[in-house]
Parts: sequence; structure tokens; C-alpha cells
Amino acid sequence: MSYSFYNGTFAPTEEITVPLTDRALYFGDGIYDAAIGRNGKIFLLDEHLDRFFENAQKISIKPYYSRAEIIDIFKETIKRASFDSFFLYFQLSRKGGKRQHSFNDSFGSNLLVTVSELPPPDFKHIDLVTFEDRRFEYCNIKTLNLLPSVLAAAYAEENGCYETVFHRGDTVTECAHSNISILMSGKLITHPTDSHILPGITRKHLINAAKELEMSVVERPFALSEMFCADEVIVTSTTKLITCADRIDGNAVGGKDGKNLNLLYKKLLSEYCRETC
Amino acid sequence: MSYSFYNGTFAPTEEITVPLTDRALYFGDGIYDAAIGRNGKIFLLDEHLDRFFENAQKISIKPYYSRAEIIDIFKETIKRASFDSFFLYFQLSRKGGKRQHSFNDSFGSNLLVTVSELPPPDFKHIDLVTFEDRRFEYCNIKTLNLLPSVLAAAYAEENGCYETVFHRGDTVTECAHSNISILMSGKLITHPTDSHILPGITRKHLINAAKELEMSVVERPFALSEMFCADEVIVTSTTKLITCADRIDGNAVGGKDGKNLNLLYKKLLSEYCRETC
Repeated sequence: MSYSFYNGTFAPTEEITVPLTDRALYFGDGIYDAAIGRNGKIFLLDEHLDRFFENAQKISIKPYYSRAEIIDIFKETIKRASFDSFFLYFQLSRKGGKRQHSFNDSFGSNLLVTVSELPPPDFKHIDLVTFEDRRFEYCNIKTLNLLPSVLAAAYAEENGCYETVFHRGDTVTECAHSNISILMSGKLITHPTDSHILPGITRKHLINAAKELEMSVVERPFALSEMFCADEVIVTSTTKLITCADRIDGNAVGGKDGKNLNLLYKKLLSEYCRETC
Repeated sequence: MSYSFYNGTFAPTEEITVPLTDRALYFGDGIYDAAIGRNGKIFLLDEHLDRFFENAQKISIKPYYSRAEIIDIFKETIKRASFDSFFLYFQLSRKGGKRQHSFNDSFGSNLLVTVSELPPPDFKHIDLVTFEDRRFEYCNIKTLNLLPSVLAAAYAEENGCYETVFHRGDTVTECAHSNISILMSGKLITHPTDSHILPGITRKHLINAAKELEMSVVERPFALSEMFCADEVIVTSTTKLITCADRIDGNAVGGKDGKNLNLLYKKLLSEYCRETC
């Protein structure tokens, strides 16, 4: 059960329908973002909205609603959904007439918002599986072109794993719907923000937490071999906040720097608790 | 004005709506194909349907309707649309419940069919513009992840051009919604079918036409510089069949082998006329 908003209509998600003029349907022509929350409060709302508007601009979609109006829509959807702890999904897609690839400035946009129930993040040990990263060079934008991530997620599930580690050749980039970082000799190492990874908001907070804990942070690509022998392998995402990998492709990994891992986890969780109490 | 079918319902396109369980909306999780026709006859229907079913299999989507049922749906939609000359678009997307990346064998599928009016193909001289190919490595599948092609098509339109030539570094791959080939000293040169281009049906018929005309055909990547000094630059697609480029990035190109270009065009057009008379 979840509750949604689409272009002016609030309704239970299963009652919402979308016209064929929504170009998300033909082209994945849109962007999205997502946040979690509790007690009616949205965790890191400003950062998620900043990224949402930046991504809309990157593919030249003009939001119909202002930032303040969107926040009101979020609040109303959350109120109607009435979950203590929730997942907020929001997507902006380009409106069109007849199906044609091209668009221009006169094309409007569609706003979809969905609120569903989600328990607060809890620290988990997970298993991962590796998968060649065959995605496009727009991974820095949170677009609706997610088929490679869909295929990778199904592959993880088939292999009894929580997530897939993408790698371009020997270089680890990110996961299908999370960022990945490693701890090595007390240093946090994570792929730099370029067109190969999404600039994750939890990733940024992980970096900040590490810096506050006076750990070194190195934003550089790392190899599969480094990941397999890292002290800890950390996977961050909006919904799960921070998890650590115990096994990758069936091989034991990490488990050698529980102290720093625990400090990082506590920093992130306390931030969530403080903002949503 | 166009007419559509979606999961059992025939209606004018503007009356069709789609539920939020259609994963095309969130992930572009689907494939499509398209054909042209006239007098109720669909040009190269078998080849388009073969590719449609192959692509569905490549991303593990199971069609709900059989091939024979889909043909009946096409015929009924074409009849209801009642255009002499038409464009037939059909898309298969994965059905889901709540939004989640992963899927399994139990997920069903949605079939969307749209028939709109389109004049029969006519030979045109076009202008092109080049654009770095930043797409994924699944370009051989006709997926709904088309945002890079959408951005490229808008770029072409902004530059007063009909199409965009994608290139990976110095290598020409294809156009945003067409294949591209060159004529050089009486030889037809075109990118081989790999993960960087769509195996176009008109491209295949162009190759066959060249072979029947006893021209050499070389399927190999060619460079931007070769394209700029080619005897002719040929752009093929389902809707336009065959066109030739007069200018790329504002520079005059081709125009040096009108004889072979004309022979190829006549072969392709006569096939269309024969099959749809």
C-alpha cells in the first residue's frame, strides 16, 4: 500500500494512471530522486531537492511546480499515506504529444510522487556479486534510464545477493542502486564523482563523517583486487544508509576494521535520528 | 490523431492511460519496435516481429500475447486507425507491483500498440550534426532507455539538422534513430553489428540491395574523417527508408556517387512498393 500524487491528483497508488503523453513511457525521458523519513519529517530534504532540480536542468526539463509547491505536495502525500516511517519517491518526466525523440523548450513536465512504508534504516551485513558496468556516460544524473541497473539487480537476486558491484574493466564504479567505498588502513577510498557514478547523498555524508572522525578520505577509482582485500567494504544508499559487505562473488571480504566501520555507522545513524525525531 | 491498444483495450491514443505498475515509467524496463505500412499491409512485418521477440528475450520479458495474437492486434488497430499509409509502433514493458529494481520470472508484461498516419517514404537530402556517443553497451537491443538519443535528437533540431551522427571517439557508430553507412569507391561501408549499434532492418536490406547490385559490402567501423570525405553518406531507418546527407556539421559531404546511391534507393523503394501495393 502506498499513496501517490500525479499532476494534481492525490490517490492511492493503484488508482493513479498516466497518459501516453508522458515521455517516461517511451524514452525514460525524466529524472527522479528519493528520500526517507519519519514522523512527517523528510531526511536531508534540501539536498535531495537540490539534486532533483539540478538533474532536471541537466536534461532540460522544466518543473511545472516551484520548490515550495513540491514541498507542500510531499507533505500532503506523506500526510495522506500516514506511515510512521516512509520512503518518498519523486519523478519528473517530460510531457509530449505524439511520440518523437526530439523536444524543445515548449514541452511541459509531469510530477509523480509516491510515499510508501519503509522501516528506519538498520545496519546490515550483505552479500554482493560483481557485474560488468555496461551503462552509459550519464550515470551522474539520476535518470529513468535504469534498465542496466534492473538487469544487474535481478542478477544479484538470482545469486542470493543484496546488491551488484559494477566494474568497468578492473575499476569498481558503484552498485546498481548504491555507492560503494572501501576502508583500507584507516582510509576511506571511494570513486570520484564523474559520469560513471551517481553523486550519492549518503556517500557525501559518509565522506563528511569520515573527515569528522579524522580519517583520511581519498576520492579515486579503486580496483576489484583492492576491494577484495579491503579492510571493510561499505555500501551506502538513501534507503539503507550504510551496510557492509561480508561476501563478494561468494568470497569473504572485509571484517578487518569493525571499529571504524562502527564509528561511521553511528555518525550516519545519529544524524538520521536527530533530523527525524 | 492516432489509435492505440494497451493490454486489451483499443481506443484513440489520447484516451489510453497506463497504471503505475508499468515499469516502463520508472526504469524504461521494456523494448519496442516499429514498422511502416500501406493499404493495411505491414512492411517487413516478420523481421520486425522476430527482432521484437528476440529483444524481449534479451531482457527476459515474457510476452503475454502470442505472435499470432499480436498480429491480430496490429491488424485491428490498423483497421480502427484507418490511415492509407501508417506508422506502427509496438512496445513491450515489464509489469511490476511496487517500484523495485529487481524482477523475476513471475513478472508479467504490458503490450502497447499505436498506429499513426505517416506518408510513404520519399527520398530526401538531409543535414547531420555530430555528437559524442555516450550511450550504454546495450545499443543492439531496442530498449526504452532512449534518453541519450532524445538529447541528441534535440541537439540536431537546435542545429537545424534532421539527425545526429554518434561517434565513440573517432569511430562513427550510428545515428540517434537511424543507421549510417558510406559509399567509397563503389563499396558500401557500415559499422558491424555489435553492442554499439542497432541491427537495423533497413540497414540489412541496404546491404542485401548492395550485394544484389554486385557492390562490395564491408562491415567495419569507419572514422569521422572517412565519413567527411566519403562519396556518399547514407542514413537508413524504418520510417525514412533511405536518405543521403548533404552536409555534416555545416560541411558539404557526399554527392560523388549519385549513380550507386540512386540504384540502392530504387531497390529499397521498389521492395516497399511491391510489398504494400
